[in-house]
Amino acid sequence: MSVKSIPLGNLRVVLVAARNPLNIGAAARAMSNFGFSWLRVVNPYKVAFREAQSAVGAEKLLKQAEEYASVGDAVADCLLVVGTTAIGNRSPRQPVHLLDAAAGKIRRRLPTGPVALLFGSEKWGLSNEDLSHCHWLLHIPARKEHRSMNVGQAVAVCLYEIVRPCTPARAMAQGRPEATPKAPGDRVERLTLLLLDALQESGYINPRSEALAEEKLRRLVRRLNLDATDVEVLLGMAHKILWKLRQGKT
Amino acid sequence: MSVKSIPLGNLRVVLVAARNPLNIGAAARAMSNFGFSWLRVVNPYKVAFREAQSAVGAEKLLKQAEEYASVGDAVADCLLVVGTTAIGNRSPRQPVHLLDAAAGKIRRRLPTGPVALLFGSEKWGLSNEDLSHCHWLLHIPARKEHRSMNVGQAVAVCLYEIVRPCTPARAMAQGRPEATPKAPGDRVERLTLLLLDALQESGYINPRSEALAEEKLRRLVRRLNLDATDVEVLLGMAHKILWKLRQGKT
Repeated sequence: MSVKSIPLGNLRVVLVAARNPLNIGAAARAMSNFGFSWLRVVNPYKVAFREAQSAVGAEKLLKQAEEYASVGDAVADCLLVVGTTAIGNRSPRQPVHLLDAAAGKIRRRLPTGPVALLFGSEKWGLSNEDLSHCHWLLHIPARKEHRSMNVGQAVAVCLYEIVRPCTPARAMAQGRPEATPKAPGDRVERLTLLLLDALQESGYINPRSEALAEEKLRRLVRRLNLDATDVEVLLGMAHKILWKLRQGKT
Repeated sequence: MSVKSIPLGNLRVVLVAARNPLNIGAAARAMSNFGFSWLRVVNPYKVAFREAQSAVGAEKLLKQAEEYASVGDAVADCLLVVGTTAIGNRSPRQPVHLLDAAAGKIRRRLPTGPVALLFGSEKWGLSNEDLSHCHWLLHIPARKEHRSMNVGQAVAVCLYEIVRPCTPARAMAQGRPEATPKAPGDRVERLTLLLLDALQESGYINPRSEALAEEKLRRLVRRLNLDATDVEVLLGMAHKILWKLRQGKT
């Protein structure tokens, strides 16, 4: 993934009052997956923070995490502060943007300086006091009946959405098989005729309706839309099966 | 969120060999958040599955989760089988689509019948045998240096991306169902096994490399992307040919 165009290093993921070490670890792991590095924790349960080292592959990020006593301190250097909210019963007092629109706004601001993205505690989310530090709110569209997401998953979804459009022209071509060339018509026809022979040898085709069967088979083989390499494999198989069918006869 | 337009109930989230009850629970919670309901587990660590009841707000979904002994069984009724992969060192033998393109393909297929989305174990991901049941693979673009995502977070990100365009403002974006219904997984697998038998009877397969040949054949048959009617025609042909091959022997 090439996201050089956007300074992801400017994003501060801020976990407010996190209680569960697994969630802190999960947030760190998602950050590492998607190329972010600055984690801040506000007033975490001390034990949770110390135990959070479990995040696979994100030890360094956790070690560098910064601890703050208040949201105000944690976002002091940030030019934009965005709070995440499940909305729910509270009627928000700030503009709320759905995640994909919000991610676009965040991407456009990252080149200008630090941006904070706040996540609340597992139990209560962000308080009104926390939210009051935010310029606007971000909402991950979830089902009305079950809006509250796990915080580690919410972090993963938000960060994914922020980097999503940056995948290089989808040139993730590494490991992706080249668009495979299709089989030429003569090889497809060869396979059709071999299959026809095998079907005749095995008594599948009624001699009286042979012409129709051949047409149907020809159309069916074309619908398979075979690759150039697959047709050769199938030809080899059909040859061998036909040879065996004929051997059985003698 | 209005996703009435797309039958999310047709998606089967399939967790293969999950070890950690928290991950099973996390997957269930994300499913509940985004409006999905069918969880299948293949060969889970028993204790993990029993302990997974913790998923906040997803108890019912977990209670209804179906347990299978093999990937083949778990996807038997599915018209499209998609595997998730971090790519990494293995060079994939099937087409790989980045999540956002993949989600579009899945949305267009959901109206036609059950679609399986497979996630591998925490430690190893999906095996080559697991992957051989898939029509194509889905990759969440993560940083090269840390590609492996937590499975609960991967589920959340994938499901978010599938429902993302269905949020009200973008209700137009629903895909059009493909014209011809595709073949269900169990019929495609049946054809694979019949072909395998025929190739064995005819001496095409070297007994020493049988397992590999089976995987290759399975992938090849999936690449054909068979229609529901074509698979029945091909099954009839393969039955007859196999019957004849065996008759020749006696």
